[in-house]
Amino acid sequence: MSVLESIAGPRDLRGLSDDQLTTLAAEIRDLLVRSCSRVGGHLGPNLGVVELTLAIHRVFDSPRDRVVFDTGHQAYVHKMLTGRAEDFSGLRTEGGLSGYPSQTESPHDIVENSHASTALSYADGIAKAYAIRGEDRHTVAVIGDGALTGGMAWEALNNIAIARDSRLVIVVNDNGRSYTPTIGGLATALTALRTNPRYEQVLDQVKRRLNAVPGVGPAAYDALHAVKKGLKDALAPQGLFEDLGLKYVGPVDGHDLQAMEHALAQAKRFGGPVIVHALTHKGFGYDAAERHEADQFHSPQPFDIETGEEKVRGQIWTDVFSDEMLQIGARRKDVVAMTAAMMHPVGLDAFQARFPERTFDVGIAEQHAATSAAGLAIGGLHPVVAIYATFLNRAFDQVLMDVALHKCGVTFVLDRAGVTGDDGASHNGMWDMSILQVVPGLRLAAPRDATRLRELLNEAVEVSDAPTVVRFPKGPPPTDIPTHTKAGGADVLVRRGPLDVLVVAVGSMATVAVDVAERLDAQGIGVTVVDPRWVKPVDPAIVELAGQHRLVVSVEDNGRIGGCGAVLLQALNDAGVTTPYRLHGIPQEFLGHAKRAAILERVGLDAQSLARGIVEDMTALTEGRAVVDVDHRG
Amino acid sequence: MSVLESIAGPRDLRGLSDDQLTTLAAEIRDLLVRSCSRVGGHLGPNLGVVELTLAIHRVFDSPRDRVVFDTGHQAYVHKMLTGRAEDFSGLRTEGGLSGYPSQTESPHDIVENSHASTALSYADGIAKAYAIRGEDRHTVAVIGDGALTGGMAWEALNNIAIARDSRLVIVVNDNGRSYTPTIGGLATALTALRTNPRYEQVLDQVKRRLNAVPGVGPAAYDALHAVKKGLKDALAPQGLFEDLGLKYVGPVDGHDLQAMEHALAQAKRFGGPVIVHALTHKGFGYDAAERHEADQFHSPQPFDIETGEEKVRGQIWTDVFSDEMLQIGARRKDVVAMTAAMMHPVGLDAFQARFPERTFDVGIAEQHAATSAAGLAIGGLHPVVAIYATFLNRAFDQVLMDVALHKCGVTFVLDRAGVTGDDGASHNGMWDMSILQVVPGLRLAAPRDATRLRELLNEAVEVSDAPTVVRFPKGPPPTDIPTHTKAGGADVLVRRGPLDVLVVAVGSMATVAVDVAERLDAQGIGVTVVDPRWVKPVDPAIVELAGQHRLVVSVEDNGRIGGCGAVLLQALNDAGVTTPYRLHGIPQEFLGHAKRAAILERVGLDAQSLARGIVEDMTALTEGRAVVDVDHRG
Repeated sequence: MSVLESIAGPRDLRGLSDDQLTTLAAEIRDLLVRSCSRVGGHLGPNLGVVELTLAIHRVFDSPRDRVVFDTGHQAYVHKMLTGRAEDFSGLRTEGGLSGYPSQTESPHDIVENSHASTALSYADGIAKAYAIRGEDRHTVAVIGDGALTGGMAWEALNNIAIARDSRLVIVVNDNGRSYTPTIGGLATALTALRTNPRYEQVLDQVKRRLNAVPGVGPAAYDALHAVKKGLKDALAPQGLFEDLGLKYVGPVDGHDLQAMEHALAQAKRFGGPVIVHALTHKGFGYDAAERHEADQFHSPQPFDIETGEEKVRGQIWTDVFSDEMLQIGARRKDVVAMTAAMMHPVGLDAFQARFPERTFDVGIAEQHAATSAAGLAIGGLHPVVAIYATFLNRAFDQVLMDVALHKCGVTFVLDRAGVTGDDGASHNGMWDMSILQVVPGLRLAAPRDATRLRELLNEAVEVSDAPTVVRFPKGPPPTDIPTHTKAGGADVLVRRGPLDVLVVAVGSMATVAVDVAERLDAQGIGVTVVDPRWVKPVDPAIVELAGQHRLVVSVEDNGRIGGCGAVLLQALNDAGVTTPYRLHGIPQEFLGHAKRAAILERVGLDAQSLARGIVEDMTALTEGRAVVDVDHRG
Repeated sequence: MSVLESIAGPRDLRGLSDDQLTTLAAEIRDLLVRSCSRVGGHLGPNLGVVELTLAIHRVFDSPRDRVVFDTGHQAYVHKMLTGRAEDFSGLRTEGGLSGYPSQTESPHDIVENSHASTALSYADGIAKAYAIRGEDRHTVAVIGDGALTGGMAWEALNNIAIARDSRLVIVVNDNGRSYTPTIGGLATALTALRTNPRYEQVLDQVKRRLNAVPGVGPAAYDALHAVKKGLKDALAPQGLFEDLGLKYVGPVDGHDLQAMEHALAQAKRFGGPVIVHALTHKGFGYDAAERHEADQFHSPQPFDIETGEEKVRGQIWTDVFSDEMLQIGARRKDVVAMTAAMMHPVGLDAFQARFPERTFDVGIAEQHAATSAAGLAIGGLHPVVAIYATFLNRAFDQVLMDVALHKCGVTFVLDRAGVTGDDGASHNGMWDMSILQVVPGLRLAAPRDATRLRELLNEAVEVSDAPTVVRFPKGPPPTDIPTHTKAGGADVLVRRGPLDVLVVAVGSMATVAVDVAERLDAQGIGVTVVDPRWVKPVDPAIVELAGQHRLVVSVEDNGRIGGCGAVLLQALNDAGVTTPYRLHGIPQEFLGHAKRAAILERVGLDAQSLARGIVEDMTALTEGRAVVDVDHRG
């Protein structure tokens, strides 16, 4: 029986000897590497928090004390220590362990949200509630230095600093990186911390520890260099926290379990809000991760444990965008690129390499990204802001009030739009095509394939008096679908038989729609498939087409409330077009994690389900019955 | 001819003597007081920035250099100095001068948005654009200490600190207040600044200056005391900016024109980003404003210049909420109240006075408000978060991911929802009922009158497993409208004649709908008026009612895209209810400033327009024609 197998919950950690704890840490790392090698996952961050998490669970009493992880992908170790080690075989697979904390999995889990910089706000509220209710419970928030660049974290610190009664311990997990190195004034102006002898001393400890890791060998110098650079670039200058009036303990070597426990115990005794500043190394203890230059295996694909080589992936949507941006950048000197701590994942690394002076990484700061992009536009440039679709929610007000109200030509590129699957509810980009509908003047495009992504991106950067949005999903683009004929600005993809069914296929659903068309054609039902390309504003040509058919079916990879289908329905209604309408999209609920394809099938967005529904609707119409969607009630 | 009359633009300020400048400042204050006494407006903030604005326009060269005001209501003086002094007779009236900067009014105006904390992001973008384009132009951002509590401002500072090439001057207008005194760790932990001899010295200057103001006389001591307290509570510790690596000049007496010019000139020469920290006094130079305890006449109603007495206003929606919260607070010990720097405007001051330990003002930080409220709910309390409807946009992601995904019982109370009018596009709360539709599990109520506000607020705080929202407009509530009969959870208000028209009246539009019903009844058209009370989720009883009528008309004080009407249309469509549907709401565009009633009439949300439209639609139906909305195209 391994030590890890003997841990049913945090209390079992109490009686372990130093040797057993060392063994346990090694076992945890081994399980992390093995699990992620199979299904991918957030390996690097979790390798960095093994001792930190052990220390928290030895010093505090979860779930009575509450442990809140910012961007919960750093909670794998926490899951292992709270009775779920054996479930790691099912990590990130449907019905298996979530890649984030999950209230349904365990009472030790609190915050499921993958959006960064929220933990301090949650913890502030929880700690205040316990203070008001007179409950003697501690709240521990674990937040990375990268997440501290997000504005919410600062709003929270400003409030926590005056919450004298809060039994709140903030563990800053400072590895000098968010996804990539943490940026900004907070990261570079570290005079106070750099000149602190304690800092150099702790840094030396981390270096020595790194050299002692078996297998690091030849990579040691590079890794060490990276650590040093990372730490020097780190956030968390002691002076800054002190200026805010926050009690500060550290810096502490985050891989020294005893030191971490000592610091946490000290913080626990204090009775008010305290920051514990832990220096850690992302990827710590696994050679391949430490050597991985781009991001220390932040979230690798499945990989070979020995070599660290990730499974080769084919071209994805992001690659097409990345390539087209290079060409636009070469042609248009006024086009600049921006991202929010996601340079590589959104594919702007190539643009950055070629046009460094025209590329900005603003940190985990979507609000600032949108509004500073408006400023760049006012100053005569055309910014392309590339982020994940789900993170645009953070900048809704800025897109509306700062960009659209001011008629700024800013292009937002939303990657990972629609169902993303593996990372659960908060990663799915199923909100953008609904909330953006309300933004006056904004134009929204959903390309169906790689060729259309290139086309629409080029059209978007030509718009200089309004925000434009181009959104596409996770994964590989489908085979190109040629245009049959044009209808207004839209592309008719299929036109067969009588004018029975008009399928309005949004973005990547075009591939499914063409498949549906073949099935309908085989059953003798006439079908037209149209891709609007620009889904906002509604193209009058689509309204006209709708009036010519017996049934309109819209299909989109977005929540079905208020999305493209809903707005088209509204436009048809305004125009007095009474063709029966069937609206397909993602049910308006939070989706559990699973593969994208599995989810799309589950929610009926696969060709077979869609075709079956249409056949039933056509039968109902032929029989003079109404078209009713029994699954949805709005 | 007064000095002010001789100023056609900023360049005319250059040749003025010291005496002329002193006279000019007095003339500006006089015009500010006279204008605001007539129509109301942001008097206090503008009285505080007279010298600061003069100094900016003497040192910089607008519009070549760009001046960006955060929360543009502090730009009245700027407007007077850029050729618009004579237009102040039309301040905040339809067709007249906007209360905010306006690109259509002047090339000197840039940012029209009233949402706080955006100026630094805009300025960062503009300055970077000029650096990239090689243009030798300066950008000046004027931001209050209150606005620095907003997370976006911190995101911006983090980026500005590393923008070495930006010719960017940040003027921190530090009056120790946002609307009310600035809160948080940033405000209280001022050790460095307090012990700075220069600080005491500058404070003394402001004190002496205050005593010299004619008319202040007996109030001088109090005012002085308030200044001192305000300044000691002020944000902007020098150490903090220095920690971020930002060049800092100050503190400077913001009412000493020469000192301000000197500091700005110094900052201008520097060539990189610089902070100029100006200490000012809100309401400076007008006795009644300085003496005004709550907020130094932040934004008074029309008032008597001699006495400073505001026109007595009758009861408004806010008062009803304020009173009901007291009763809920007395009954439910677990109910806590929260606001974002708007304690008095949202009516939580009474709750705060009675239950101080259960009241939180988080600063201008809507994101933190939402997520810390989720934390309070997790900790066993029920928070009521009261903010203006338009500012909820800032917390959309947090409402969705932090509150709804985690099934937290948090009640959001949205004041000033719908058309607010006077303060222009960014104050209108016309977005909330659209974007909130996508939030799974969220329940949204729109009370039609004071009695329903009390009822629905009580129902909302009973919901413990989902976010609830109660939204109501600006101004006085209408006379109560009794319930005729119930239909599911909805109230039928009118039921007359045959089942011709069903009017679904959302919230405050019920009063208009009852008026419409009388007009239809007079013409022999049968009418039913229903108030859904809870507009989300859609009540099945309303779907059923819709199926029983010949025409459905929905009326809401919200953008017509994706709002209550749109979701009801979608629900009817899903249910196979094909009753012709006419959807009335605010056109999906940014509205210019005017009185609420005038705007509602202009956009067709008055009883006469609505009734006329319905009569036309009924005629069309009788004649077998389709119901078409020619004004809207979605």
